[in-house]
Amino acid sequence: MAVLLNAFASAEEKPDRHNVLVIYVDDLGYGDTGVYGHSVVKTPHIDRLAAEGIRFTQFYAPSALCSPSRAGLLTGRTPYRTGVESWIPDDAAVALGRNETTLADLAKRQGYRTAVIGKWHLNGGLHMQDVPQPRDFGFDYQYGLAAWVKNAAVADSGEVPRRGPMFPDNMFRNNQPLGPTEKYSAELVSDEAIEWLKASMDPFFLLLTYSEVHTPIASPPEYLDQYREYLTDEAKNNPLLYYFDWRNRPWRGRGGYYANISFMDAQLGRVIEHLRGRGLLDNTLVIFSSDNGPVTDAALTPWELGMAGETGGLRGKKRYLFEGGIRVPGVIRYPARIKAGRVEPRPVTALDVFPTLARWLDVDVDPDVPLDGNALWPLIDGDSFVRDKPLYWSIPTPDGMEYAVREGDWKMILDGDGVPRHLFNLSNDWYEVNNLVDTETAVKERLLRAFRSFNLSVANDPLAAARTTSPR
Amino acid sequence: MAVLLNAFASAEEKPDRHNVLVIYVDDLGYGDTGVYGHSVVKTPHIDRLAAEGIRFTQFYAPSALCSPSRAGLLTGRTPYRTGVESWIPDDAAVALGRNETTLADLAKRQGYRTAVIGKWHLNGGLHMQDVPQPRDFGFDYQYGLAAWVKNAAVADSGEVPRRGPMFPDNMFRNNQPLGPTEKYSAELVSDEAIEWLKASMDPFFLLLTYSEVHTPIASPPEYLDQYREYLTDEAKNNPLLYYFDWRNRPWRGRGGYYANISFMDAQLGRVIEHLRGRGLLDNTLVIFSSDNGPVTDAALTPWELGMAGETGGLRGKKRYLFEGGIRVPGVIRYPARIKAGRVEPRPVTALDVFPTLARWLDVDVDPDVPLDGNALWPLIDGDSFVRDKPLYWSIPTPDGMEYAVREGDWKMILDGDGVPRHLFNLSNDWYEVNNLVDTETAVKERLLRAFRSFNLSVANDPLAAARTTSPR
Repeated sequence: MAVLLNAFASAEEKPDRHNVLVIYVDDLGYGDTGVYGHSVVKTPHIDRLAAEGIRFTQFYAPSALCSPSRAGLLTGRTPYRTGVESWIPDDAAVALGRNETTLADLAKRQGYRTAVIGKWHLNGGLHMQDVPQPRDFGFDYQYGLAAWVKNAAVADSGEVPRRGPMFPDNMFRNNQPLGPTEKYSAELVSDEAIEWLKASMDPFFLLLTYSEVHTPIASPPEYLDQYREYLTDEAKNNPLLYYFDWRNRPWRGRGGYYANISFMDAQLGRVIEHLRGRGLLDNTLVIFSSDNGPVTDAALTPWELGMAGETGGLRGKKRYLFEGGIRVPGVIRYPARIKAGRVEPRPVTALDVFPTLARWLDVDVDPDVPLDGNALWPLIDGDSFVRDKPLYWSIPTPDGMEYAVREGDWKMILDGDGVPRHLFNLSNDWYEVNNLVDTETAVKERLLRAFRSFNLSVANDPLAAARTTSPR
Repeated sequence: MAVLLNAFASAEEKPDRHNVLVIYVDDLGYGDTGVYGHSVVKTPHIDRLAAEGIRFTQFYAPSALCSPSRAGLLTGRTPYRTGVESWIPDDAAVALGRNETTLADLAKRQGYRTAVIGKWHLNGGLHMQDVPQPRDFGFDYQYGLAAWVKNAAVADSGEVPRRGPMFPDNMFRNNQPLGPTEKYSAELVSDEAIEWLKASMDPFFLLLTYSEVHTPIASPPEYLDQYREYLTDEAKNNPLLYYFDWRNRPWRGRGGYYANISFMDAQLGRVIEHLRGRGLLDNTLVIFSSDNGPVTDAALTPWELGMAGETGGLRGKKRYLFEGGIRVPGVIRYPARIKAGRVEPRPVTALDVFPTLARWLDVDVDPDVPLDGNALWPLIDGDSFVRDKPLYWSIPTPDGMEYAVREGDWKMILDGDGVPRHLFNLSNDWYEVNNLVDTETAVKERLLRAFRSFNLSVANDPLAAARTTSPR
């Protein structure tokens, strides 16, 4: 108890040594939580986090895909600058460029202990020797998996159809494989996070990256039971069917997806309540978001079957640059500076996290390395907030390359040849159903100039020439 | 009572004079009813109809759009033969060719009284003088609207945003406009159907075409209340907001759509129970289906906002040729020949209704006019059922023209140039996520030949040259 009081007092004396917890979840849609309007799914911990902090209604992911969004979050730079332009397949040589500076580097420079616990997916695998790994980017400690949950005992069982709990067997600790496990992913991640948090009283930077609700979704029975009425008989009778083996079976219903959200919420809640219980939560800058929009029930691949993500009515979904693919939940809790219960409508992006943290930690960053976000403190403190660049996205969609650019209320989507295809005024067309590309010519030209200028900046990025994926 | 007994006895003596009730609803998806697996929506009347008859798990609409599907249902001919190739805009000169023979013509030849009550949408408007109207196609009686519910008092109110109950003001009786009404569409349609059924004891052919659940959906408050937990606060507070004015307001939730399904179910239930109460139901061949797949929550246009159709996991939706756009609920109830509770997995199509009815009514049809379905009696009676043509679809999708052809378990989707893009084996890939177009070359070539041969038959259709949309 004395230790706890002491820790608190010490943090009060040095607010610049408050902790940082960035929770980045996987494929959670804008409409997938209670506080963002889901009519069924219960997410009490995320809802409370939002109620105790600032909730953004236009929080953008840097990309509509996981790897590039994570690259953007960690560096504050649009993913196309960083070498991570799409999701990274197993064993690919693609990786976040080792010359990038990350959030963990910033914290490290101020003496924080640092960890990434959860999914990494900024290279082709945590087993690879010849590409940069988390500890090359300022993280002291790594626990988790590369991309998504795997379980060879189920996948290679030879049964037809295959069945069994998808306990991950692809977890690594400090890049050492851990073999089979006996819990679902989010619980393993929270267990590890709590142990790591307990290990020291020094200020920490923790990047907590649940692989939920990325397919294959897998949740304990008590969570499936909560959403039993949203499971078809087929799903009730086959709770452990391997996800690829649903191809020729009746619809599963939405319950499995709902269960996975609540399971993840409960697990991230354990970490938050651990900090609250130790009196550390209010001395921690907590940032919560998701890497891209959800996989909806409109499956395009075998592994998307049985998903049921909600965009809250927004157009599009994961892999597309309509709002549903890139607008995500976003919350910052930091009572030292943020009044509870605030809802903020101005657009922000996960690219803003890096400059926000750099300013807060008082770390100088190389002025010659372009950043694509802005520090959010003026917006948080209620001052006027000026964004100095357009928001910009690029992604290989299933229909080909796509680009998007947003300035003020206007958003334009361009095809792979850079030809404008959609132009929306988001102030009165939230759902992007009123395409003005043929009528708002002046706006189109203005956004086209912004887009080209941005592309030029990316092409001439100073780190690109020197980029290497070799280990430091 | 004597009259009722007499009617029943008379029907027993002349089973060939049994009645016909074809219920064709609008935009109801494969997964939108209880009996087809919806986990929330209650459809007790449709469920009971299915339980008392034969329920098809692969029942196809002739098209992924309303007007062509209705043309196909009425004629037994793929819509591209009939002059109705897409949905028909208001006041367009497009109409079902007057030289087509319809289901009503078949019944009329056997002395049935005939009516279409509900939506027509086989021309540019029920007010038009210079195009064929329902009574040009064998219908004695017409009641209903042309395409979808309109209400000028709400639409042109000048309020911002507009509000008010969408009671249709575009209903016609025998092509005479009826002006404002004070009930929602399905209730008006059922009221009229019951009155028409009461008016005579002669055998009837009734085409009952609810405009539900086509947008704009509008349901009485008691149905909205049933699904209150699936309405967002915004929708609860704005139950009468005009549907086009949702463009810049928060997500409505799924409740409004669910309510509309249950409202429609209750209204068609009134007609069925009226027949049951009079002892006429078991002497009636009842066919129930939908004109195309649903409008899902993935809105592409302002009028699609707030919809929440379910395909039961099938890929696609209204306007697309994946299964979700064309596979629909389908039930036949006819206890004189069909045992209750049967579930039939073999593929059938609404194009089969015409030859089925012609055979049953013992009406000879012109052998020189190609039909594209087959009489279902062998399948119903348990004999071997042989389809003599591939299933074929063509549709202008939002992404351009598309074609599809199915033979046995194989389905191929072709682009507007007739190039095969997708090839699926539906026996083990219900969700069309495993595209075999590059590997199953022999199957692709076989289906391509079938497709071309079918196109040739359409191009040389004997009625096409003589087609006119002038009144008879």
